[in-house]
Amino acid sequence: MARNTSIPADTSAPPITALLARFTATHPSRGWSDAVEREAQRTFYNWLGCAIGAARHEAAEAAVAAVQVLQPAPQATVLGRNERVDIASAALVNGISSHTFDFDDTHLKTIIHPAGPVASAVLALAEKNGQGGRAVLDALVLGIDVACRVGNTMYPDHYDRGWHITGSTGMLGAAAGCARLLGLDAHRTAMALGIAASQPVGVREQFGTMTKPFHPGGAARAGLMSALLAQAGFTASPRALEAPRGFVQVVSDKRAWHEVTDELGERFEISFNSYKPFACGIVIHPSIDAATQLRERGVTPGQVERIELRVHSLVLELTGKREPRDGLQGKFSVYHGVAAGLVYGRAGEDEFSDAVVNDPAMVALRARVQATVDDSIDEEAVHMTAVLKDGARIEVRVDHAIGSLQRPLSDAQLQAKFESLVTPVLGAARAAEITAACGRIAGLADMRQLTALCRPGA
Amino acid sequence: MARNTSIPADTSAPPITALLARFTATHPSRGWSDAVEREAQRTFYNWLGCAIGAARHEAAEAAVAAVQVLQPAPQATVLGRNERVDIASAALVNGISSHTFDFDDTHLKTIIHPAGPVASAVLALAEKNGQGGRAVLDALVLGIDVACRVGNTMYPDHYDRGWHITGSTGMLGAAAGCARLLGLDAHRTAMALGIAASQPVGVREQFGTMTKPFHPGGAARAGLMSALLAQAGFTASPRALEAPRGFVQVVSDKRAWHEVTDELGERFEISFNSYKPFACGIVIHPSIDAATQLRERGVTPGQVERIELRVHSLVLELTGKREPRDGLQGKFSVYHGVAAGLVYGRAGEDEFSDAVVNDPAMVALRARVQATVDDSIDEEAVHMTAVLKDGARIEVRVDHAIGSLQRPLSDAQLQAKFESLVTPVLGAARAAEITAACGRIAGLADMRQLTALCRPGA
Repeated sequence: MARNTSIPADTSAPPITALLARFTATHPSRGWSDAVEREAQRTFYNWLGCAIGAARHEAAEAAVAAVQVLQPAPQATVLGRNERVDIASAALVNGISSHTFDFDDTHLKTIIHPAGPVASAVLALAEKNGQGGRAVLDALVLGIDVACRVGNTMYPDHYDRGWHITGSTGMLGAAAGCARLLGLDAHRTAMALGIAASQPVGVREQFGTMTKPFHPGGAARAGLMSALLAQAGFTASPRALEAPRGFVQVVSDKRAWHEVTDELGERFEISFNSYKPFACGIVIHPSIDAATQLRERGVTPGQVERIELRVHSLVLELTGKREPRDGLQGKFSVYHGVAAGLVYGRAGEDEFSDAVVNDPAMVALRARVQATVDDSIDEEAVHMTAVLKDGARIEVRVDHAIGSLQRPLSDAQLQAKFESLVTPVLGAARAAEITAACGRIAGLADMRQLTALCRPGA
Repeated sequence: MARNTSIPADTSAPPITALLARFTATHPSRGWSDAVEREAQRTFYNWLGCAIGAARHEAAEAAVAAVQVLQPAPQATVLGRNERVDIASAALVNGISSHTFDFDDTHLKTIIHPAGPVASAVLALAEKNGQGGRAVLDALVLGIDVACRVGNTMYPDHYDRGWHITGSTGMLGAAAGCARLLGLDAHRTAMALGIAASQPVGVREQFGTMTKPFHPGGAARAGLMSALLAQAGFTASPRALEAPRGFVQVVSDKRAWHEVTDELGERFEISFNSYKPFACGIVIHPSIDAATQLRERGVTPGQVERIELRVHSLVLELTGKREPRDGLQGKFSVYHGVAAGLVYGRAGEDEFSDAVVNDPAMVALRARVQATVDDSIDEEAVHMTAVLKDGARIEVRVDHAIGSLQRPLSDAQLQAKFESLVTPVLGAARAAEITAACGRIAGLADMRQLTALCRPGA
């Protein structure tokens, strides 16, 4: 009864479900370089700040209201809030809030935001079981490796056809991370990956709505539940990922299986993770970065006659809004980004508030920013010239913005970002306590020492 | 940054998300013919029997164990069991158990099994809210219409590329049914459909594992949670189904939008629902049916010299196992099916037990069944000749098996099937009580009157 279909099946795929399961179940704890370990801590810390920062957003309010219909047991923390809910609901809500500001981490090879699905699932489970930071970091590194390697296998075709790759690979990462935390053997871990393989979450049409951040949350919940089912003996196909009617072949024409197998256990995909310094699309980042460099060199808004930008055409195509009317529109205005960089030296969620976007001083400064298309300039670069009222010209060239792999955020910059997110929700003292706890996360005996700090009333 | 992709996008799709949302929210209660209403009752009743019948299967045991890790609130019944769990978990587990025996209903145009996702979600929500049978039947008819119309839009391409269409459209039906029960307006119903559109469940590689019945369960849970999120104000794209990067275009090359719009509110897809009389693949059904007709004509196993079958080649290709060793293999043996029909007059889950398959009398009778391929005979037909020891020849020809749209199960046959499923779990008296309650379902003031009967200890 088989019919022809336009997508040819690959019957010779290697057994990647079993390979990834064995890797997840048996790779030694802390079996990687110091650089990978450091990236794991930074990934977790950055994700935590994003989740706490959006804890009072209307998306978080709606998600908490919905899961509370379930009268969930108080098993795990909703980050930045006092409600405690069951672990599946905590994975869902924390996954949603960590992606709500579009400010979380990015695996640059695939544009997967891996911590949303993986950390949200792993932290909820670890909190309930009283597990420590070492186990969480191990689960995070391995879970991210599974999600991003499957992402590499399919990117860009899978993304191009309309899947939001964060949620449509994240359930595998969450399943792997939770299977690891539960101590499942390779067979049960394969079952967890298999159950998760039937549950990709997210199409790109949702961008611009709350369902976009729902995708990492839904993937976190799906992966966590898949691991619990596998632990209880639930079965799935041991070739659920690679078979002709398995996940990868159903959702992608590109099937670069070697992306799963090459250097497995030696190269870790978390090494390619990056953290956004600015709460907006990546294409404006070089311009904001250049403006903050002007500020660091002592240029003040009052001195400026005009600021000239030369940028790739894509920058104006995507973010050429001259007169943004509110915070969301501000995220699509390179003019506003430059003004924020010069005035505030940063461009976090606060600098994209309605109030800041409509501040008359900001409106006036934006009017003095001029942008010219120059396609000899790379998409990742900007050439900026500040022409001062005294006639001086100050030039700044940025080839790779802060936050790129070439110029990663320093730990101090990451901390400043974290505190800008967390302080409005939990206060400066608590933000500092959480920073300190994350700094010694590998030695934390029980993650509840950390999660207690993430509830305002605790 | 858009790349080429092999699937051309359709930018002129009609607004089917909004259309289906308005239909779901505003179509009048009981706004259909008596025939549709009757099919709604039969669909619900058949689904209920399937779910109760599999309540002690190892898949149900594992699923209950997994959701109980969440310490769910006792909001809703796990059918056929004493545990009560939160409504999302009840939707999940009842959706799993109702599909575990592969014995549930089938929308023959798409091979969607629609009650699994829709009824499992709707009953859990109605039970918690104390809603009555009228509201449940309305939600069931409308939810099934939404799932099957979207299925019609994409079938067969979507199925052929590897999606298990029951779980990958069922979340829309569950979302619609629950939105209706919650009384959401057309806008919020569109948001519920939109959130659900990001959560298709199931690839066909899972067939033969517990993750196959997980698909309707996962879809039920996803749809229910989508409606709860929409009720709480969570947003999705209002074009989540039809946009170029929306659900339908991402998962199917076939996009027959008119399947959603044609006769919406006049023709109801539940009219094309059917109920399996036999607990095995549909391709053996004509042969079992013919054997039961022999039995009804007084032929006994002891009289039979041999039974000759002429069947389409597909029958032996899929179910040609001559010497099945256990119950599962028995489901792939037309020889066993014929023997069961002649000996028992039925082929339910009991007749596919290991004990019956290995019963020496059955083994001996199977050896006297001969099958010949004759491709002039339709896939849905069989020509059977019983050659008796006294030399008599009795011929039976079946063109459409019992359970097909042409020869639907009578209410008495459906009741016999229901009781064969439910009696081993709840006893004959309780099975009769549930049958009676389902017979007056439209008048039930509170579904808890029914669900209480479905718990052994209640």
